[in-house]
Amino acid sequence: MKTDGYDVTVLGGGAGGVAAAIRAAQLGGRVAVIEDKHLGGLCMNRGCVPFGQMMVASRFLSTLSLAEEMGIKAAKVSTDYPTLLKRQEELVTFMRQGVLGMLNKNKVKLIRGPGKLKGPGTVTVNGETFSSRKIIIATGSQWLKPDFPGSDLPEVVNSDYLLTAKSLPRRCLLFGDNPYLIEIAQFLHHFGSRVWLATRDKTLLARENKTIRTRLAKALQSQGLTVLTSTEIQHLKKKRDGVQAVLKIKEKEEAVAVDLILTVRRRASFAGLGLESVGLNEQAEFIPVNERMETGVEGLYAIGDVAAPEERHYSHLASSGGIVAAENAMGQKSTFDQRTMVRVAYMHPQVACVGLTSREAKQAGYDVVDGSAPLSMNPFGMIIAQNEGIVEVVADRKYGEILGVHIIGDGAAEMAGQGVLAIQMEATLEELARAAFPHPTLSESVAEAARDALGWPLYLP
Amino acid sequence: MKTDGYDVTVLGGGAGGVAAAIRAAQLGGRVAVIEDKHLGGLCMNRGCVPFGQMMVASRFLSTLSLAEEMGIKAAKVSTDYPTLLKRQEELVTFMRQGVLGMLNKNKVKLIRGPGKLKGPGTVTVNGETFSSRKIIIATGSQWLKPDFPGSDLPEVVNSDYLLTAKSLPRRCLLFGDNPYLIEIAQFLHHFGSRVWLATRDKTLLARENKTIRTRLAKALQSQGLTVLTSTEIQHLKKKRDGVQAVLKIKEKEEAVAVDLILTVRRRASFAGLGLESVGLNEQAEFIPVNERMETGVEGLYAIGDVAAPEERHYSHLASSGGIVAAENAMGQKSTFDQRTMVRVAYMHPQVACVGLTSREAKQAGYDVVDGSAPLSMNPFGMIIAQNEGIVEVVADRKYGEILGVHIIGDGAAEMAGQGVLAIQMEATLEELARAAFPHPTLSESVAEAARDALGWPLYLP
Repeated sequence: MKTDGYDVTVLGGGAGGVAAAIRAAQLGGRVAVIEDKHLGGLCMNRGCVPFGQMMVASRFLSTLSLAEEMGIKAAKVSTDYPTLLKRQEELVTFMRQGVLGMLNKNKVKLIRGPGKLKGPGTVTVNGETFSSRKIIIATGSQWLKPDFPGSDLPEVVNSDYLLTAKSLPRRCLLFGDNPYLIEIAQFLHHFGSRVWLATRDKTLLARENKTIRTRLAKALQSQGLTVLTSTEIQHLKKKRDGVQAVLKIKEKEEAVAVDLILTVRRRASFAGLGLESVGLNEQAEFIPVNERMETGVEGLYAIGDVAAPEERHYSHLASSGGIVAAENAMGQKSTFDQRTMVRVAYMHPQVACVGLTSREAKQAGYDVVDGSAPLSMNPFGMIIAQNEGIVEVVADRKYGEILGVHIIGDGAAEMAGQGVLAIQMEATLEELARAAFPHPTLSESVAEAARDALGWPLYLP
Repeated sequence: MKTDGYDVTVLGGGAGGVAAAIRAAQLGGRVAVIEDKHLGGLCMNRGCVPFGQMMVASRFLSTLSLAEEMGIKAAKVSTDYPTLLKRQEELVTFMRQGVLGMLNKNKVKLIRGPGKLKGPGTVTVNGETFSSRKIIIATGSQWLKPDFPGSDLPEVVNSDYLLTAKSLPRRCLLFGDNPYLIEIAQFLHHFGSRVWLATRDKTLLARENKTIRTRLAKALQSQGLTVLTSTEIQHLKKKRDGVQAVLKIKEKEEAVAVDLILTVRRRASFAGLGLESVGLNEQAEFIPVNERMETGVEGLYAIGDVAAPEERHYSHLASSGGIVAAENAMGQKSTFDQRTMVRVAYMHPQVACVGLTSREAKQAGYDVVDGSAPLSMNPFGMIIAQNEGIVEVVADRKYGEILGVHIIGDGAAEMAGQGVLAIQMEATLEELARAAFPHPTLSESVAEAARDALGWPLYLP
């Protein structure tokens, strides 16, 4: 049965799909969202929000010693994971209701069930087939089975495990190169687990500028986390008391005894979506799109995790892409400037990087100039002991165009907003150098880094 | 005796003077700074830095209940003011040494003593007179005696009192309309004092948008602070145990028994500076300057508190003005865009406002459109319980130019940097609405407020 259709149908009700659906409806479209699980997607239900709260809790614990230096002494600090989970459940439930309310308010039709493409402009769900002038694929990502020997053991889990765990593992090996993993490792560490954070790469956050990587490694080390780089899992062996993981760390073999091995690899999720019915390649890593979020198939858009490699799986990319896809679907001309996508990790210290690294800028042919301002020289940074923090600015020497802003330190994720605007608005070093950020804030170091790039840092010793 | 002079002489080694001196030296000038007290001025020694630390300590205490909701419980929390002061002293000492190092590195000559103008282009200090091609007045501000009856009592103090106090007052009345006063009231409250915060105005932060004022009042009330508006001090009476302050609150009289009355009124400081020798008015409230920081006297500039009414006494105004004055003194053409000066208060929740309020924008003749986004609807805002937080954007309807950004909530001071850049770079609502701020951050609400102003908020219920 084929019924009357929609102007825009969005497959998936996560961060990207919801933004796309609301925007399309606001532009006058008759819009449907198809979702067979919880509204809000990975981010709200199992990602940014639950782990965002864990990061806040973890950060609180890590500031106890600073508080003590300020004369505030907390005796006998205890942690209770079930209480944290209870608040998480309340938060997420409230947010899901909020999303439902927003869809209703904007007259978006929510269809519960698994949606599937049936050729261009045709969607099927719950046995019903309907036409849609435009379709936006926003089906997100799915877990990927780890690729090391022994990964079939029940002790090998992903981050979903933590969201319903009765208690936290006593000893945990976290393996991979996902920034999420660093957050989780730190959280577990602060909540009393013994953790090993291991990556195959030579460093954590291997793409980022060396300064950022070095400072992050130093900070994690000083907090007592064990970070293992250039590490492989050779094999896993079930023991009476947990699992023995035999690691190859550079050329050395080492065995660690743990209760859990945690990974967070993900990939675009489009199995069974009927991509072949519209001529898209089901074997691809993700659905490639242009800056208008167009797939190349007439009237078909894709946004968020389903349209990006894992290193670009960020909720803000999904929602920004959703706005752009919706506007184009409704006949506007809209593009997303990929340069402004922040790569962010919420552990302490936070890392937030936007735009090109120095190396990438050089590879792109720019005559690169960069500048930096350590937060240890920033007055507010001194107050809150930001010993490992720094802001780096990467720019084009000729015109002073800001190409990248890289931050490690408290509040990096909020400060990155200044990098987003600087790049989006095509600010120059001269402009950023004169931005009157309020005092005392860490943001002042964004201007100081720009001044450093220009050769006139005011407050560097 | 008249000796060889300088290209630029800066009177005062505070936030403004230091920035000006370093910048002028970097541009090739032979530069002197004259300072007879501590380097770093009010902000570093007795303002932003000490109270910045107090705000951090205070904030920590105010997050204990949120931490408890997240499962983190402290059996007993105690505060020790001398420990806080000890850290403050160490911080400030370290920072002063830092400033001295920066002056030396930039080959700025530091002259210790009280500097004085002796006619245009001439300065005298320690009995020595020298010429200077350009002179920048950066002498800051000074305490103003309170103007209520009984203010001669020794129990009437300013914020300097707290910086060396052995202990905190058991009961304290804070009187005035300075944002600083709110910070101090909150700090004392969290550190165990009973406080009354009283102002003659109808509300706290009377200039700001109503939403900001209302939410601040609500937040302070919910924290247990007593805020009295439309209040006068009728008289003070010394008692055996402190002071009795008789207040007139609207039409009602009420007496409160306190140990201290604290005020923080300040005004431009230029008594004895020899302004008359260059033809400037010594009776003025402050030294008026244009956007180039020029006083109207050839070669004479003024920056910071000495060149501004009390409501514009902000360290970032001083340092930004310092850069501009130095560049103009060294022959460049530089201006400061006053619209980008953030009005900030660091209590919890923070308030940071930049640019025009709605009312000011209307008065300036704009066809005003505004939008807002409560932080209680922001995912990260929900995680950290930002119930009173909001972002408001004020814009010109015709071109969508951003005229003002007003924020109350955690991290407002850092987020205000986005308002600074938006106004400085002349961003439009359309641009701000599409800024891809990372998720989950409070900054996302800046974009959402812009979308609200455009009529398409995505996440408002």
